Amino acid sequence: MGLPSTQKAAVKVGQGDLATIEIRTIPIPTPGPGQILVKINYSGLCASDKSLLHDEWAASGVAMMPATQGIAGHEGAGVVVAVADDVKDLWKEGDRAGIKWIASVCRKCEFCTNGVDECHCPKQLNSGFSTAGTFQEYCLTDARYATRLPEGVRDEEAGPIMCGGVTAYVACKRSVVMPGQWIVLPGAGGGLGHLAVQYAKAMGMRVIAIDGGDAKRNLCLKLGAEEFIDFTTTKDITAEVMRITTYGAHGVVVTAATKAGYEQAPYLLRPGGTMVAVGLPKDPKILAGAPPLLLCLRKLNIVGSVVGTLKDVEEALDFTARGLVHPILTMGKLEDLDRLCSDMIAGKLAGRACLKVAA
Amino acid sequence: MGLPSTQKAAVKVGQGDLATIEIRTIPIPTPGPGQILVKINYSGLCASDKSLLHDEWAASGVAMMPATQGIAGHEGAGVVVAVADDVKDLWKEGDRAGIKWIASVCRKCEFCTNGVDECHCPKQLNSGFSTAGTFQEYCLTDARYATRLPEGVRDEEAGPIMCGGVTAYVACKRSVVMPGQWIVLPGAGGGLGHLAVQYAKAMGMRVIAIDGGDAKRNLCLKLGAEEFIDFTTTKDITAEVMRITTYGAHGVVVTAATKAGYEQAPYLLRPGGTMVAVGLPKDPKILAGAPPLLLCLRKLNIVGSVVGTLKDVEEALDFTARGLVHPILTMGKLEDLDRLCSDMIAGKLAGRACLKVAA
Amino acid sequence: MGLPSTQKAAVKVGQGDLATIEIRTIPIPTPGPGQILVKINYSGLCASDKSLLHDEWAASGVAMMPATQGIAGHEGAGVVVAVADDVKDLWKEGDRAGIKWIASVCRKCEFCTNGVDECHCPKQLNSGFSTAGTFQEYCLTDARYATRLPEGVRDEEAGPIMCGGVTAYVACKRSVVMPGQWIVLPGAGGGLGHLAVQYAKAMGMRVIAIDGGDAKRNLCLKLGAEEFIDFTTTKDITAEVMRITTYGAHGVVVTAATKAGYEQAPYLLRPGGTMVAVGLPKDPKILAGAPPLLLCLRKLNIVGSVVGTLKDVEEALDFTARGLVHPILTMGKLEDLDRLCSDMIAGKLAGRACLKVAA
Amino acid sequence: MGLPSTQKAAVKVGQGDLATIEIRTIPIPTPGPGQILVKINYSGLCASDKSLLHDEWAASGVAMMPATQGIAGHEGAGVVVAVADDVKDLWKEGDRAGIKWIASVCRKCEFCTNGVDECHCPKQLNSGFSTAGTFQEYCLTDARYATRLPEGVRDEEAGPIMCGGVTAYVACKRSVVMPGQWIVLPGAGGGLGHLAVQYAKAMGMRVIAIDGGDAKRNLCLKLGAEEFIDFTTTKDITAEVMRITTYGAHGVVVTAATKAGYEQAPYLLRPGGTMVAVGLPKDPKILAGAPPLLLCLRKLNIVGSVVGTLKDVEEALDFTARGLVHPILTMGKLEDLDRLCSDMIAGKLAGRACLKVAA
Repeated sequence: MGLPSTQKAAVKVGQGDLATIEIRTIPIPTPGPGQILVKINYSGLCASDKSLLHDEWAASGVAMMPATQGIAGHEGAGVVVAVADDVKDLWKEGDRAGIKWIASVCRKCEFCTNGVDECHCPKQLNSGFSTAGTFQEYCLTDARYATRLPEGVRDEEAGPIMCGGVTAYVACKRSVVMPGQWIVLPGAGGGLGHLAVQYAKAMGMRVIAIDGGDAKRNLCLKLGAEEFIDFTTTKDITAEVMRITTYGAHGVVVTAATKAGYEQAPYLLRPGGTMVAVGLPKDPKILAGAPPLLLCLRKLNIVGSVVGTLKDVEEALDFTARGLVHPILTMGKLEDLDRLCSDMIAGKLAGRACLKVAA
Repeated sequence: MGLPSTQKAAVKVGQGDLATIEIRTIPIPTPGPGQILVKINYSGLCASDKSLLHDEWAASGVAMMPATQGIAGHEGAGVVVAVADDVKDLWKEGDRAGIKWIASVCRKCEFCTNGVDECHCPKQLNSGFSTAGTFQEYCLTDARYATRLPEGVRDEEAGPIMCGGVTAYVACKRSVVMPGQWIVLPGAGGGLGHLAVQYAKAMGMRVIAIDGGDAKRNLCLKLGAEEFIDFTTTKDITAEVMRITTYGAHGVVVTAATKAGYEQAPYLLRPGGTMVAVGLPKDPKILAGAPPLLLCLRKLNIVGSVVGTLKDVEEALDFTARGLVHPILTMGKLEDLDRLCSDMIAGKLAGRACLKVAA
Repeated sequence: MGLPSTQKAAVKVGQGDLATIEIRTIPIPTPGPGQILVKINYSGLCASDKSLLHDEWAASGVAMMPATQGIAGHEGAGVVVAVADDVKDLWKEGDRAGIKWIASVCRKCEFCTNGVDECHCPKQLNSGFSTAGTFQEYCLTDARYATRLPEGVRDEEAGPIMCGGVTAYVACKRSVVMPGQWIVLPGAGGGLGHLAVQYAKAMGMRVIAIDGGDAKRNLCLKLGAEEFIDFTTTKDITAEVMRITTYGAHGVVVTAATKAGYEQAPYLLRPGGTMVAVGLPKDPKILAGAPPLLLCLRKLNIVGSVVGTLKDVEEALDFTARGLVHPILTMGKLEDLDRLCSDMIAGKLAGRACLKVAA
Repeated sequence: MGLPSTQKAAVKVGQGDLATIEIRTIPIPTPGPGQILVKINYSGLCASDKSLLHDEWAASGVAMMPATQGIAGHEGAGVVVAVADDVKDLWKEGDRAGIKWIASVCRKCEFCTNGVDECHCPKQLNSGFSTAGTFQEYCLTDARYATRLPEGVRDEEAGPIMCGGVTAYVACKRSVVMPGQWIVLPGAGGGLGHLAVQYAKAMGMRVIAIDGGDAKRNLCLKLGAEEFIDFTTTKDITAEVMRITTYGAHGVVVTAATKAGYEQAPYLLRPGGTMVAVGLPKDPKILAGAPPLLLCLRKLNIVGSVVGTLKDVEEALDFTARGLVHPILTMGKLEDLDRLCSDMIAGKLAGRACLKVAA
């Protein structure tokens, strides 16, 4: 099939804060049973990649596994270049495919068959965590769990939708905010936040965006936010949310992985409201929670959300195909990975970083 | 109507840990517009009464208001002895009535009219908190929000159902555990816990009761628990719950107002499971929550619950009327209030305390 | 308060097809306990008014009651001109108020207190059916169930929202079509249909409008429909819906009160889809239903919907206040009632008819 | 592996009312990729088998396909005797397995991946309808969709749970009747009905059983019904249901495939209630439906239900494993098929028929 025998990959070297990326030449793997090989045209860069590459969750016992060979990345989009015999009915060379955080599920356990959510499959493989990820030119993945990319969504947009987009979309769904009700999005101008603004708007919600500075204000309002609260100039954010909503918002999505973000969020809610936790902090002592007197007397809901099902991803892509949701991208190459991670840590990254991977 | 002009009431004297109860003789009030006067035959004693009588939530800014005249109590059951003119179509003397934590709602706000939950009415009055409660022989209440007691439920059982029963019942509903699924009830032998065991069982759930000692074991199994975990002899409760349920329980109700109770609960859940917070701790720093890595990756739900709607109370009573749920009572008199509160604090109270109030 | 003593009212005279409207001068009533008197600036004209004025549902045992004095109308908007003493805390003269199909509920029964839906209160009064309606200059109504009109919604728009708007909105909610999913709206260019297009669009649904002719096509597309199927030129509507949606639509709202409309609707649905019945036919033998082989094998849902709760009406108005939903009006006067009913029967009415009532 | 080369099968011969069963000797098939061969110890006999064997749904275009070789049956339970190479990680010889109406799904379509319901997979195979069924000693099936039989459920009980049990269970779930609410089960003493009584009871519902005669009365009450209405002696069944429930039942499950059954059901419901259609009539003109005036004004729900997901079947079996649900069986052999179908048509069959298939 005319494939080269070697490829370029961005490989983690070292541990923790000192870890860096090295571009190495490694062999291109061959699909085993049930697998396809995808040439990765673009891969998004998620905050979780940054956390894994720097062992941020080590204190919680979460770290990249040897099987990854040090290759992170789980927002890949490209084209199928090889197909195992037993899945030739599913894919053919040339098909466009996306690779996600969840690379594979067992399809046998209670969660794979429970009619709700295969995302909890205890035997799942995760791209860039328990299996080599998308920061390489050619990535193997489970043919039965790869995502078919629809017309009208370019690879560089499809990549970030694979995780960032679906995470924002599913968080909005988990909030159970109904059309016409208020959702608060702290960090609305960020990588996840600016996607959440667009999904929430497309779902009929009224968006209160929180972020800092006029550039973020302009961005959020342009993307569909109805109100913008500038945390750099607003003394009492809770009071401001109450002023706008009378009783508090119906939902809030916490994308920031910070103590302050988690502490404030439940106070922004009206009785019966829902806080959706998405951001994954380094410090295992940070809780997503609320004092019981607040939680109980207001009958609040605090729920966790992470990526989404195969079907959720298709739905998330569909919003982009319909022209309603577009990731704002900071483009780079595999070689830029360290720098983009640094920018992310420094809060200097605009929108979502996306790497051109294969030539 | 032959009522005496004075009555006996249990009145809070002093503050905080030093607060005590004094039995005083006070005037019997007359119903204003929209009100009925209920002769309280029995009143349950709730942990919240104990907390309010000892200013336990002062650090959270929650304390009995002057309008209570120091009279706590919100689990009253008795008989209507006077009816305001404008509500004579609703009640007549001799009708049996129950008085709840929520004494009155405005019926105009978004929450009273939202088709979901009047319990969040910002103008609500609360028995024994913002209006004089049921620890007096004759208690005024809102005719439109008092509960009609059904046949087949005796006053001494109806009282504790007014708050303890409905709280246990609604917490079970909030858990969204379906028939055939597992619910864990820490403190299953306690005042709220033993009611939750019965409601959960009657709702088709499989109950894992957690408590200490053989007396509690026997009680819980007799009330319908399928499994009992003795925390005094079990090294690893989480492991034991996993052994029984494979992936964790579908729900857990935290009735204990302790740090340990709230910390452990989320680890007992399977992916997608729900923790219901009910216990209201003294220390405002205790959170009902979970580390985001746990909450998000397992897509857990943490929800607060407190009492229930007018309709919930009717449903909770109906289970007793059908013979499926019976509070286990430690009987006393108004004069026993201090002692019963002490027993409660010491963990020596069996089941729910219930006071014979009016002669 | 300077009110005149008499007023103009449109009164039903005669029975069935022969019934006509007579403009009569009648006394202005005085509020009894719990009531307000509303000067009706505008009243919408609903298909149900037409049905009741012509005894169309007599075969089903449904007919205007004597207490109406022959005055139909249940989409009234105007200003409060008198308030009973016991509800002066709720309303004051000069407040803007709306009157709905449900004029009053008991607030005591299971449905008024069940936390779901007071619309089933067995003691409800209905404007223009069991109590005099809004086709009179001054209309009495229950102060506790009248609707407060928000700023930004003019009376002539508010009137039709009271029933037509909320009916369209609640039908969209009952369809449980999620943002990004397909809803089919037969009769999309009609009085209810054109409101449903706007609500569905604002709720993030993708709308397939069905109606006849280019004027309707242009209207529907302008209001937000994504696809238009012209039934006058389309041979196989089901095939066309399948072509657009692959497996069928997620929901369909049947506003037409016809046999053909009800027969076709379930075939437009994908497995698990929902058909919402709204139109109320004259012929009691017409069923909203489906052959069990279709209903069961595709696990369809067929649900009935009628108006909405007090809260639903507030939500429906809010969409108009936000500029998202505007009724298209054919304006008239009380004197035009007969003619407008005829136009409605002939299918010649554009949008919703609205009468200027009080001078 | 010591299997014989031929087996006994019950094969449909002839068409329509004249169709009969012939016991033939046919080859034992060999598993293809993804398949297992199951020795059928017992197979339940479903009303659908009877309908298919007698071409009852021909007017609706539904008939057994040639690929069945005339072998019906979809409630099989037995033991795995051969496993294809590619699924040896899933099954081994000697495992106990159940075969269902849905024999196989594609695992790729929107319904297989939508997180709700693979039962609508358009490429599904159905046992005894599009692939040879369980009325043969050795039956091939999809390894990934066969059901693992739990300890504590004997084969002769597991068979009828594969379709009859799960159908009754899922219909109860589809009714959304909550614990403590009323469900009406017409035909409660029948093959599906007596299972529904037990599931409903175990789910905390209050059961009103409808059937005829004292034997049925005794059976239903013994299985957990709270009320029994004898249709042979009750003049007005609707009135009787209203007397018991005040406003009507919260749910009704129509297992009877008759016009009368479908016509009466919606009138038994309270506002907001749900009718679940299960019975599949011969006459395609019979509708599961209600007049819109009834359906809309009472906001009723009419939903179709058929079997259940892989997970539903596991849940249904679990109730039997826990001792809460037991099919009442009329035992027979393959040779008795014609006679048992006749008994079923004549309404003479007690409980569920179950055939001993392999020796």
